[in-house]
Amino acid sequence: MFIVFEGIDGTGKTTQVNLLARALSGRGLPVLVTREPGGTAAAEAIRRLLLDPAGESLEPLTEVLLYAAARAQHVARKIRPALAAGRVVLCDRFADATLAYQGFGRGLEIGALAGLNALAAGGLVPALTFLLDMPPAEALARLKRPADRMEREGIEFYRQVRRGYLELAAREPGRYRVIDARPAAGTVHGLVLAAVEEMLHETVCRFSRA
Amino acid sequence: MFIVFEGIDGTGKTTQVNLLARALSGRGLPVLVTREPGGTAAAEAIRRLLLDPAGESLEPLTEVLLYAAARAQHVARKIRPALAAGRVVLCDRFADATLAYQGFGRGLEIGALAGLNALAAGGLVPALTFLLDMPPAEALARLKRPADRMEREGIEFYRQVRRGYLELAAREPGRYRVIDARPAAGTVHGLVLAAVEEMLHETVCRFSRA
Repeated sequence: MFIVFEGIDGTGKTTQVNLLARALSGRGLPVLVTREPGGTAAAEAIRRLLLDPAGESLEPLTEVLLYAAARAQHVARKIRPALAAGRVVLCDRFADATLAYQGFGRGLEIGALAGLNALAAGGLVPALTFLLDMPPAEALARLKRPADRMEREGIEFYRQVRRGYLELAAREPGRYRVIDARPAAGTVHGLVLAAVEEMLHETVCRFSRA
Repeated sequence: MFIVFEGIDGTGKTTQVNLLARALSGRGLPVLVTREPGGTAAAEAIRRLLLDPAGESLEPLTEVLLYAAARAQHVARKIRPALAAGRVVLCDRFADATLAYQGFGRGLEIGALAGLNALAAGGLVPALTFLLDMPPAEALARLKRPADRMEREGIEFYRQVRRGYLELAAREPGRYRVIDARPAAGTVHGLVLAAVEEMLHETVCRFSRA
């Protein structure tokens, strides 16, 4: 089972991934926590290059191809083997982040990006994607660590990214759960866990009937 | 005018690029010499990552996406501006290297790679592509520097890459010049220069008629 958390910076994705991992592990499920871009040594090296591209600014297209490269390595070397071993994989961002940030945010053509995503992910699609949603101004105010390249973008950029995520969620209601990320982490976690339990229940029922 | 040199490692591409640059500069033409992967600070950083991916082997797909990322940056930041400024751009390898190495060499699907190339190069196609051709065993014997990741590949890999290059050249005879790279560098250079002068002459004639 492949579960992804999406949302703009500052919405608490990392916190929620970790809370869900603890809850599922506590129920005896084998869990792998990972993140994009990154997840393997080579993919983390690509992540570092994205954050510090040798003192040069990256073209939007270069950026998107680097994300795709990191994703291809991550899927083949970490995510697919873990799923094959029966683990629940929790991932902090995945392919839809490319559509939201580079497509809706930077204006690259969505169709080309979707094709690139399909190539890089080898057709892997999350069973469940949580969109942690909140207004960009509130999300950015919650960021404590120094702004990296992405976080230096203006608020209007994040508004476009948020709109993109909401549109992606509206297109695939079966896979997406949009969750208001403003309440306390424990409250948000309760909603996340309920949705995961519902899906696990459905999966078990489907197995029982089969 | 955009001129590319292709061929397997050890065929003397770099030498021929430099000899042609000197010859054209000597005739008063403004020349830019560049190479792939690389050509800008960020693209060179991607090149280093390709050669040393944090101690991890790269998936063929990851590799191809990294080459595409470097190409996107190189085309937008270095090649297109130089062409726009009226310079002759001489490039050591370009998009066809991806088709030959990753497609014919590693077996990735040629159609997907061609689509990725078109995306990364933004439709830029060389006016002239020289394929420096020789049997892989002879080419590899000429390499003096320590083998890098690519050069550690077996001879059969290089045979497939060579076959790929020859097939690409056969598909586009108008753009490709296949040159036997075994003779002395000066002899090969004479053939290269004759082909470039022929193209320059045709271009001038076309301008004169217009």
